[in-house]
Amino acid sequence: MNLTRLLPINLLLASSLATSLASPLAAKEGMFTPDQLQDISGQLEEAGLEIDPEQLADLTGFPMGAVVSLGGCSASFVSPEGLVVTNHHCARGSVQFNSTAENNYLADGFLAATKADELPAAPGSRIYVTTEVTDVTEQVRAGTESLAPLARYELVEQRRKDIIAGCEEAAGYRCQVASFYGGAQYKLIKRLEVRDVRIVYAPADSIGKYGGDIDNWQWPRHTGDFAFYRAYVAPDGSAADFDEANVPYEPEHHLKVSASGLDDGDFVMAAGYPGSTSRYTLLAEVENTFNWTYPTFQTLLTDWIATIEEAAPEGSDARVKYESRLAGLNNFEKNLRGQIEGARRVGLVERRRAREAALADWIAADSDRAAYGEAIAQLAQLSEESAAAARTNFWYNNVSRPSLFSAARRLYRLAKERQKPNAEREPGFQERDMTFFRQGLQALDRRYDPAVDKAEWVLFLTSYIQQPMGERVADIDQAMGLTSKTTAEELPAIVDRFYAETTLGDSETRLALMEASPEALEASEDPFMQLAVAVYDYGFQLETERKTRSGRSLALRPAYMEAITAWQKEQGELAYPDANSTLRVTFGSVLGGSPRDGMAYLPFTTLEGITDKDTGEDPFNSPPELLERIEAKDYGSYALESIGSVPVNFLSDLDSTGGNSGSATLNSRAELVGLLFDGTFESVNSDWDFDPRTTRTIHVDTRYMLWVMDKVDGAEALIEEMDIVE
Amino acid sequence: MNLTRLLPINLLLASSLATSLASPLAAKEGMFTPDQLQDISGQLEEAGLEIDPEQLADLTGFPMGAVVSLGGCSASFVSPEGLVVTNHHCARGSVQFNSTAENNYLADGFLAATKADELPAAPGSRIYVTTEVTDVTEQVRAGTESLAPLARYELVEQRRKDIIAGCEEAAGYRCQVASFYGGAQYKLIKRLEVRDVRIVYAPADSIGKYGGDIDNWQWPRHTGDFAFYRAYVAPDGSAADFDEANVPYEPEHHLKVSASGLDDGDFVMAAGYPGSTSRYTLLAEVENTFNWTYPTFQTLLTDWIATIEEAAPEGSDARVKYESRLAGLNNFEKNLRGQIEGARRVGLVERRRAREAALADWIAADSDRAAYGEAIAQLAQLSEESAAAARTNFWYNNVSRPSLFSAARRLYRLAKERQKPNAEREPGFQERDMTFFRQGLQALDRRYDPAVDKAEWVLFLTSYIQQPMGERVADIDQAMGLTSKTTAEELPAIVDRFYAETTLGDSETRLALMEASPEALEASEDPFMQLAVAVYDYGFQLETERKTRSGRSLALRPAYMEAITAWQKEQGELAYPDANSTLRVTFGSVLGGSPRDGMAYLPFTTLEGITDKDTGEDPFNSPPELLERIEAKDYGSYALESIGSVPVNFLSDLDSTGGNSGSATLNSRAELVGLLFDGTFESVNSDWDFDPRTTRTIHVDTRYMLWVMDKVDGAEALIEEMDIVE
Repeated sequence: MNLTRLLPINLLLASSLATSLASPLAAKEGMFTPDQLQDISGQLEEAGLEIDPEQLADLTGFPMGAVVSLGGCSASFVSPEGLVVTNHHCARGSVQFNSTAENNYLADGFLAATKADELPAAPGSRIYVTTEVTDVTEQVRAGTESLAPLARYELVEQRRKDIIAGCEEAAGYRCQVASFYGGAQYKLIKRLEVRDVRIVYAPADSIGKYGGDIDNWQWPRHTGDFAFYRAYVAPDGSAADFDEANVPYEPEHHLKVSASGLDDGDFVMAAGYPGSTSRYTLLAEVENTFNWTYPTFQTLLTDWIATIEEAAPEGSDARVKYESRLAGLNNFEKNLRGQIEGARRVGLVERRRAREAALADWIAADSDRAAYGEAIAQLAQLSEESAAAARTNFWYNNVSRPSLFSAARRLYRLAKERQKPNAEREPGFQERDMTFFRQGLQALDRRYDPAVDKAEWVLFLTSYIQQPMGERVADIDQAMGLTSKTTAEELPAIVDRFYAETTLGDSETRLALMEASPEALEASEDPFMQLAVAVYDYGFQLETERKTRSGRSLALRPAYMEAITAWQKEQGELAYPDANSTLRVTFGSVLGGSPRDGMAYLPFTTLEGITDKDTGEDPFNSPPELLERIEAKDYGSYALESIGSVPVNFLSDLDSTGGNSGSATLNSRAELVGLLFDGTFESVNSDWDFDPRTTRTIHVDTRYMLWVMDKVDGAEALIEEMDIVE
Repeated sequence: MNLTRLLPINLLLASSLATSLASPLAAKEGMFTPDQLQDISGQLEEAGLEIDPEQLADLTGFPMGAVVSLGGCSASFVSPEGLVVTNHHCARGSVQFNSTAENNYLADGFLAATKADELPAAPGSRIYVTTEVTDVTEQVRAGTESLAPLARYELVEQRRKDIIAGCEEAAGYRCQVASFYGGAQYKLIKRLEVRDVRIVYAPADSIGKYGGDIDNWQWPRHTGDFAFYRAYVAPDGSAADFDEANVPYEPEHHLKVSASGLDDGDFVMAAGYPGSTSRYTLLAEVENTFNWTYPTFQTLLTDWIATIEEAAPEGSDARVKYESRLAGLNNFEKNLRGQIEGARRVGLVERRRAREAALADWIAADSDRAAYGEAIAQLAQLSEESAAAARTNFWYNNVSRPSLFSAARRLYRLAKERQKPNAEREPGFQERDMTFFRQGLQALDRRYDPAVDKAEWVLFLTSYIQQPMGERVADIDQAMGLTSKTTAEELPAIVDRFYAETTLGDSETRLALMEASPEALEASEDPFMQLAVAVYDYGFQLETERKTRSGRSLALRPAYMEAITAWQKEQGELAYPDANSTLRVTFGSVLGGSPRDGMAYLPFTTLEGITDKDTGEDPFNSPPELLERIEAKDYGSYALESIGSVPVNFLSDLDSTGGNSGSATLNSRAELVGLLFDGTFESVNSDWDFDPRTTRTIHVDTRYMLWVMDKVDGAEALIEEMDIVE
């Protein structure tokens, strides 16, 4: 959770927030692309960076070459033998995957005695090592400006797919064409896709997940949120599926690990893969999001959580399947609550209004800037339209959530897409996507319970039927037999039929349908498939509308971003693109703060704080040997003099968001001093507006990591394997 | 709520905790009796006190003569015309009493334009002005040591009643004989009982109750917890019931009000009436309380709150009647949770064990101290017995809670007591108590709803019938037709009859029964009265057992306290008696702190913190004009330079507990600088064990009071009436 990219969760909001989540401004803040760092080398040096800032711009050099992505989380190499350190919560799925009643690695922790004891990570686990970054802006954008919006969107997307396909002709690589500044710039990122990932060491949940949901997004914090993977490749060095013959990957670069760490005020930076931010959204989007979408969704989330908890009572088999979803929904609900609260506290809407007015004044001051003004006016209009569409689509999207309905829609879409040549298919439905597609269909078995799914659907439908007929979807109503007179009491009976008659609950059936033709699916008697077929045209229409709006945006947003960039430059600020899951660097210092009037956050927590918090009950149930080492003040060489103990977690003013989890936190010499893993509750709003007063990022200190490894878990071999520096 | 004496709530625990709540150790802590202050005059002067410490010992001189009790809250005179300042939450009942749909003073606040517009406070409101304090130890204790325990208890109680009766021969006075150090010392406190109390000014709930239950026991805090009463007396200066001819009381002393206030680290002291503490309880009592009573009661409270919320849904008429009880139960539940958490954090049980061991070592070191050792051993045995009795009585006490059953028991007891001469009756049943007795019976009308009462009773009975038969009460079982086979499902039908057939729901009926003979009540057909009669003997037996234990304690605890006092004296510490609702003085300084690892409390909150917190919704719904004045930075002369704003609330390391609410907070010159109103969540455990690291008391700053009066509420006339000093 925490700062894992909120991917499955963002998908929940996908259609409604696609625009608002795909859109940026700046102070001490900044998620800089590495190539921007040379432009602020003066600032970096002033802040305390001791290595050459230009070094940071080389993605395949040191230290950036040691920074990798897990897809959703960030990580880094810490040994010449492919040892990777990331957050415990990023690797926990793999620990869970290997746990059994006899070997409960979640409860007991896991430490491979030798390389031969390292266990395969959960299916789908990947380590992405960037090997090349190329600017492909011209290739993507040339000649698109004169096209109509939908054609523009489609040509851009086709070119992105073609470039990716060309890049992936090199076997074992996974490529992406990332869009920056709302489509002003495109970069091809070529990444070695390590598919044989193994779990090496993860402390027990009672260390790695200490504080659980209660402490999530909170300071003070005492979470040992770290774990180790190892990347394996074929003996020839190429990416390969798991095989005993595989050998540890030898990265070109790895980070040194600092055992002396930081003190209050020290320079710190983090390199990772932040998912998405909305710092450049226009007022209409902000207003719609904070006045409507977020509050509406937060209410729905509260009901949704209650519905699952009731349908899958604690201790039931169903609960096991829904634990992860519940944790995700709770995390999201807390995040939304924090965002709504933060927006109110900083006056987000007013600030955005003021920023737009100031930008408008700047544009008005020079007639050469008139084109900016026009683009922004049109973009504002587009924002209004997107906001209106988001409201209309909200209930439709909710009604479309049930697992098997969703699976049916994806399968039917796949059948349709397979009519086209592979290169022309929608992203997600190309051959390169089929492994993940299949894994998605399989994973349903571990996450689906008909009774719970039904209860969720009834909840969503109950809200849906309360909407005016004009906001409802005729195809849904017709296919499900819903009328203006349908009452909530009738819904359970209406949905029962779907669950009674569907065969999609069976994994084999679902997988077999990956090969079915559209006609075969149209003739299916499965009620979910029938429903999927019935709403296909409507869904396609929504998608076309969205693509058309995106096409319009592609012509407008680059101009807006150009205006912002020029305007900020005049003020001596370097504008950076909104987060887009590409490598970014953020820098600042170890810093406490006063998030609220009358209260202060101190920059470090200590071992003794664990003892203070410990109740013996989950999630505050430290292993007894850990508490004993604290009681004995057995700090080893890991204590920080200024706090008189071993630092556990620390705060910084770095700029981070979901996806940054596991990011290497580096000192002025680019040595690893911690792992970024969360933000404070008062920071969650920073996705929209970075408030230097309250935004703080939470890191686990390498001194605590090493102390746990040394004093509690006996992981001396790993310490030995890494380059520890004082 | 907050630091109001938890009286109605303590009554809930009455029988079970009577002993543990009536029993103390020291650091910077200390709730000193005024006569102790001369013994620590050096410490006071060193801490910064500028007036002569001996002045503080004179209860009828300045400044102590200005400090009064409201019975449950503390207060002080702030003008020569009987103007009294206390907490908003101490006067809120009077605001509520005068509120109507048209004049909603709770929502709008109340400010009397002239004295003629001042409204009568709620029935039963009193201002107690101490006029004389006399040591009566010898009179109470002489010759009691040789008696058997029950006889000793009864003689002591009879003497206390006799002394009170003698004192109250002076009309208009209310006297008490307070016990100190567990019965080692008795003092007669003679107090003028002002019965004509009028409400002068209370800010709106949205200032005076800002933050509501959410912020209760919390820092950072922004509550304008202040209000003003005025004391009225007959034209001849004697205490009198409300009469238009009455005139403002002219106190001999009143406090000056500081408009320049305090800064971080400044000397501060508070004078008030703390209710009770348990700092000298023995290990067995601590263990029983924290291992059994508190956790058990906290669970029950949670169920109890849920039961009321379900039976009296929000918006219902019933809910209005139960708002106050719900607030009390929630306050108590939060308090217990804090106490349990605090006890775990500081290791209360281990600390108490260590203290007893250290005291035992000190006693063993000198054979002259052997008698102490024997007394303590016997007291420890007694503690075990009391603890066991508390467990047995717990379920009986719960089952006895229903309102009309409780009224019936009190009425039957009154009938029985009236058989005796007035002087011999139990406290609470003497003629001097009849006004409050009658008001209690009347007040039921505003706090009783049969459906809610029934739901509560079913809840309590459900736990009761789950107890082993040996722990159940045969008289209850027989009278209610409960057997070992009775199930929870049958309970509603069993209790229905009581509510269907009772006539005690009628106020006139209840009041009429105050004159009934025991025989008449024994012949009553009212099911609650029949039940009261049926359990009378059992209740009487429990009471006799309790009195017998108290009688034993009276012979033992003074020796224990003498040992503690001598032992502490050797360590340079002055032992002080546990709080007993008598006037105490606590001193220290304005001080923030670090209640938890990684976090700090700053000593002051600011006006801007109100704006930060404000959501526009209760309880964070400041009046718009207040927010406007903040926005305009209209600080007047009330700002504190070091914080750059007007201070709202502040923290100190003073030693306080329930009953201290409204206590005058004084600077080194004994000028009023604030009102004590709450403790932090981490402090609630200090009743058992004062932890200097985490115990902090919360005050409202006089600068905020004056700012609100001046800038928001237009209370210039009152400011004019007070002596404001810079």
